[in-house]
Amino acid sequence: MTGSENAPPSETSDSFKLAHDHVAEGDLPEGFRFAGVTCGIKPSGKPDLSLIVSDWPVVVAGVYTQNKIVAAPVVLSRGRTPTDTIRAVVTNSGNANACTGDQGMQDALEMCDLVAEMVDCQPENVLVMSTGIIGKHLPMDCIRKGIRDAHQQVEPSLAGFIRSAEAIRTTDKNRKTVTTQVDVGQRQFRVAAMAKGAGMIAPNMATMLSCIVTDAPLTTDMAQTSLRCAAKTSFNRVSVDGHTSTNDTLLLMSSGQGTPLNPNELQIFQQALTQVAVHLAKQLVADGEGALHVMAIRVEGATDESAAETIARTVAASPLVKTAVTGSDPNWGRIVSAAGYADAEISPENTSLQICGITIYRDGAPVPFDEPALSAKMKASTEVPIVLRVGQGSGTVEYWSSDLTSSYVEFNSEYTT
Amino acid sequence: MTGSENAPPSETSDSFKLAHDHVAEGDLPEGFRFAGVTCGIKPSGKPDLSLIVSDWPVVVAGVYTQNKIVAAPVVLSRGRTPTDTIRAVVTNSGNANACTGDQGMQDALEMCDLVAEMVDCQPENVLVMSTGIIGKHLPMDCIRKGIRDAHQQVEPSLAGFIRSAEAIRTTDKNRKTVTTQVDVGQRQFRVAAMAKGAGMIAPNMATMLSCIVTDAPLTTDMAQTSLRCAAKTSFNRVSVDGHTSTNDTLLLMSSGQGTPLNPNELQIFQQALTQVAVHLAKQLVADGEGALHVMAIRVEGATDESAAETIARTVAASPLVKTAVTGSDPNWGRIVSAAGYADAEISPENTSLQICGITIYRDGAPVPFDEPALSAKMKASTEVPIVLRVGQGSGTVEYWSSDLTSSYVEFNSEYTT
Repeated sequence: MTGSENAPPSETSDSFKLAHDHVAEGDLPEGFRFAGVTCGIKPSGKPDLSLIVSDWPVVVAGVYTQNKIVAAPVVLSRGRTPTDTIRAVVTNSGNANACTGDQGMQDALEMCDLVAEMVDCQPENVLVMSTGIIGKHLPMDCIRKGIRDAHQQVEPSLAGFIRSAEAIRTTDKNRKTVTTQVDVGQRQFRVAAMAKGAGMIAPNMATMLSCIVTDAPLTTDMAQTSLRCAAKTSFNRVSVDGHTSTNDTLLLMSSGQGTPLNPNELQIFQQALTQVAVHLAKQLVADGEGALHVMAIRVEGATDESAAETIARTVAASPLVKTAVTGSDPNWGRIVSAAGYADAEISPENTSLQICGITIYRDGAPVPFDEPALSAKMKASTEVPIVLRVGQGSGTVEYWSSDLTSSYVEFNSEYTT
Repeated sequence: MTGSENAPPSETSDSFKLAHDHVAEGDLPEGFRFAGVTCGIKPSGKPDLSLIVSDWPVVVAGVYTQNKIVAAPVVLSRGRTPTDTIRAVVTNSGNANACTGDQGMQDALEMCDLVAEMVDCQPENVLVMSTGIIGKHLPMDCIRKGIRDAHQQVEPSLAGFIRSAEAIRTTDKNRKTVTTQVDVGQRQFRVAAMAKGAGMIAPNMATMLSCIVTDAPLTTDMAQTSLRCAAKTSFNRVSVDGHTSTNDTLLLMSSGQGTPLNPNELQIFQQALTQVAVHLAKQLVADGEGALHVMAIRVEGATDESAAETIARTVAASPLVKTAVTGSDPNWGRIVSAAGYADAEISPENTSLQICGITIYRDGAPVPFDEPALSAKMKASTEVPIVLRVGQGSGTVEYWSSDLTSSYVEFNSEYTT
């Protein structure tokens, strides 16, 4: 069991440091202006329309939902990325514009048309994201007014960035933002990122939206490759309820000018981007509906990374594992047996388990441990580390999931339509 | 949308009729004796050891858990079936004898030795099943006494059968039994079946055990093929929490003598066996931990049966779908989007949905419906029929799942060890 020795990668390095609890004005990349306004989609009167405008055509890469039922804004934006001609991204919250047929696509197109007219570009140079209730048509009068208001208010400031991040929230308890600076050799660049989370949207579904802006100079290919790579070990390794939304969208926008990053610089940037994405992804899980704990699941010793991911995802999704963590119950039987039914090879006689650093199962057999002490430790931990070794292979992943509480069930079984 | 026309197969036919709410003495197959006793494994003092003895060596087929972490009794019984030499099956509840290493295998072997000695056969002619807490060694003193007591009490009566079925229960709210008679052409045979359910076993895991006895004459191959076929569309199409146990075991025992069933007779028997299995499987779901409703999910129009099953399983496992049903919320967005993220082809523009016979989504677009009326209908239904058409293919399955309630979470997050 090497779990305690193999510490997860630190979130800091010599070249950059995440601003965890705050965002910094100086971290905002050049070339972007931001706004967030209330246009009236949400009955609550909370901000519901976000606009990001770039001062010149920028590189944008995108990663989208794998759901086969796809919302109109995803169809539209997916068809336009990767590219180096984007001038704006408009996002509304409160209505997902999903399962809305031809009218939905017309509405998404009109959102782009309106933005293009204001920033003086082609509609094809605008991307759109939506999140909220599905199966309802967008209230276009609100949207039209919101776009006009937002355009009047866009500003290259931290205040604008925060308002923009606020306006994409749905049931998120907290705003999800992070900014950082990256030293890549001789040059320094900035990264600012926002996300909205896998909280539920009454009475429909979770959507993950995220937009990461940077002034690191990237080609379209570099941006797309970096974003895919970052998504693979961050947003694709978190789970609240395993329900993939129709609207999930992750964008990387680069306003960087000058010589694109060289391979060494790109490698450093890639690491920073991944850690920004992991940081946001963990915020999503921590803010999962009703969540009391984040389960930080590390699977080691699988036959390969893909097998490790399958095992981690299966453990993370098990209602029995989730409820054990909810109850601070160091219930190794549930965790080990969940690994056993994952669709990947494991070696039962080489299977070991640590919770909160305490080994409780080693090489296929229980290890005596102080159960009340470990339970107390779990109860006190916001993030419960679970390290599961399943064999002698090289496959290792980290995966994050929320626990499952009565609050989740109550929230999602309330009949509100 | 043909869901309303394609009614699910009836549970009755001309050749046999399930005894739903009772079991009948006349349905008990010849050649079996049954007992159920309290031997002291369960602190509650409830029955915890079951013994089935056959009067002569019988055919037994088995289907076992796919979990890679497998309990000792499964390893042992799996290695001994299919066969035509079995004389007894001993089952204990309250302790799963799983993750118990070499000692666990010694204990399982000793259970068979003790039974063999009493019924005067070889240990290899005895099968063993266990269910309950995992990771604890069996209290062999209790087991030894229980086997002696049970052997003294075995009797070829309905009372014995019922005591046997009681003794395999763990947290099941209800006993799960069904008996029937099958007319296969000129000959008539009997089937009696018991199961214990996918309720939780504090504080560990769910296990499904089932034993079906018949006097229809089957060869070993016929028994194994029939059982696999029956399991495929019954026990393999139900889900409470998607957590596959280390101990799941389904046995078919045939004491039938004389000419084995001919192909026509076998086909009729197969239908009866499948319906018996479906009946038990639905009882498992209805008795799922905290369940308020059974979701009866029918997927139609998939590319093939396997695709239909993947879609049905994904919809059945979605916490969002489950909690919508808990809240009697006809939330088509959750169901349709769950189908969309299943790992199978769907045709969004040909996707339609009925709940309780009411079409609420047709060919990719919402259909106006009376939401309060449908919600009231769902609330009043113990079994909520969900019919999802996902395209024009021939793949159709039926799948049963329980909803997800706060009671489930509370029960499974109580720290009881």
